[in-house]
Amino acid sequence: MHLKNYRVDGDGSWKLDRHDPADTDACADKIEARKRLESLRPELVELQRRLYAGNTHGLLIVLQGLDAAGKDGTIRHVLSGVNPQGVHVSSFKVPSAVEAAHDYLWRIHHSTPARGRFNVFNRSHYEDVVAVRVHADKILPEWARQRPNLWDERYEQINNFEKLLVENNIHIIKIYLNISRDEQKRRLQRRLDDPARNWKFSASDLPERALWDQYQVAYEQAFKHTSTDYAPWHIVPSDKKWFRDLVIAELVVKTLRDLNLEYPKADPKMLEKVRVS
Amino acid sequence: MHLKNYRVDGDGSWKLDRHDPADTDACADKIEARKRLESLRPELVELQRRLYAGNTHGLLIVLQGLDAAGKDGTIRHVLSGVNPQGVHVSSFKVPSAVEAAHDYLWRIHHSTPARGRFNVFNRSHYEDVVAVRVHADKILPEWARQRPNLWDERYEQINNFEKLLVENNIHIIKIYLNISRDEQKRRLQRRLDDPARNWKFSASDLPERALWDQYQVAYEQAFKHTSTDYAPWHIVPSDKKWFRDLVIAELVVKTLRDLNLEYPKADPKMLEKVRVS
Repeated sequence: MHLKNYRVDGDGSWKLDRHDPADTDACADKIEARKRLESLRPELVELQRRLYAGNTHGLLIVLQGLDAAGKDGTIRHVLSGVNPQGVHVSSFKVPSAVEAAHDYLWRIHHSTPARGRFNVFNRSHYEDVVAVRVHADKILPEWARQRPNLWDERYEQINNFEKLLVENNIHIIKIYLNISRDEQKRRLQRRLDDPARNWKFSASDLPERALWDQYQVAYEQAFKHTSTDYAPWHIVPSDKKWFRDLVIAELVVKTLRDLNLEYPKADPKMLEKVRVS
Repeated sequence: MHLKNYRVDGDGSWKLDRHDPADTDACADKIEARKRLESLRPELVELQRRLYAGNTHGLLIVLQGLDAAGKDGTIRHVLSGVNPQGVHVSSFKVPSAVEAAHDYLWRIHHSTPARGRFNVFNRSHYEDVVAVRVHADKILPEWARQRPNLWDERYEQINNFEKLLVENNIHIIKIYLNISRDEQKRRLQRRLDDPARNWKFSASDLPERALWDQYQVAYEQAFKHTSTDYAPWHIVPSDKKWFRDLVIAELVVKTLRDLNLEYPKADPKMLEKVRVS
């Protein structure tokens, strides 16, 4: 799979709407895609074991997407089978009073993985340049409004923060689950129709959906400014869940493979001499 | 007092040994210095109250210095009288296993003040480019040794991190307590001679003292690379405690004064209408 196709390059002319949410070119058959996902699973499990054993690299997956884009489902489908002892999912909701009194990266930094660990952010600091930007009039405090370059400052702060992590061996995979307006409509309606899905419907889902265009603009700006060589964004076609899952599994496995993870080598003299009695 | 005299400018030719640890030029009389310190105290108390009430600015004081340079004494003398509800002191010792598994700024970021608060770091992230550098052979993990520009990377990471804080209204005062080799000798000897001070003497104090020259070089490099316009370093002459305390009190009061802190204004209509029954 040519994962580069989904990567946001630094090119100034890049546009979000160039990416088709329904694209399945790399594997158009659902059965085949599910097979390939399952064939990747043992390798993913093994790579995470090596990450955990080696304690020199950490992995952070940042998942962003509109409501019903499939963040929860991605985590469930792609990471099932991986040892939960080494994996942690952080969901970032509206900041608490204490969190809001600190810089917006304070709670984010605290949830980053240690070396040896694998963390997933279900939403992230990107809400602070997307949702906060879309709702700036309502939620930005006065002191922040007075900063004329607030969003550019935040893009740079985020890039610097992610550079710090990568230079300290915490690698980052940034994924945007790209769904179409129609697909979101279908999924939100199903949340209303299916009693087992009612709990996922929130009163804010429809007002947020009404801001679709503003969100597209805010996301596009964020991706343009924060897709770096050390932490690029990937726009994953997500109208078809089976295709989305396959692309993400390939991305995670490839990233871990490229780290050349090995189990730490024991001292051969120790192995020769030490006997368990 | 010309506080600029103590500031490290970005000039490439700057040298630490240009700063005399015994300098008392700005106020050579001990009684006078103590009087001036006391006369600053009510203003400091008032400014901290406004910071707390306003909730839009935070203050972080970073205190660095060799053993016996006077970090604990500075906090006791300068900040006594300030409401402890709004002030928090964090002492950074050898990292725990969990802390060491994260990037070195992880624990530091977590201890930064919220807006409205005033935190003091007794030692800080600067140990990660000073003590860690002096003892690199013993304590740097293998993956970090393999980074050819590790220290330059860390200087940049620290500058970016501090910029994030300042741009989010967390202001930073960085202070190096500059003592002479002879004064350190006197103070360490007193810790051995005085039973009420024995507890401050540590087995590592003498081996660390033997590395005096290496520490001077590491500090000088750190100051040169991390004294920025948004978070400059101050080299405070600290052989005379009464002079040190005065300079630091002036520095803190001036920084808070420059923020033009005001109590939040109540709505006049509310004040007119609301009566407590």
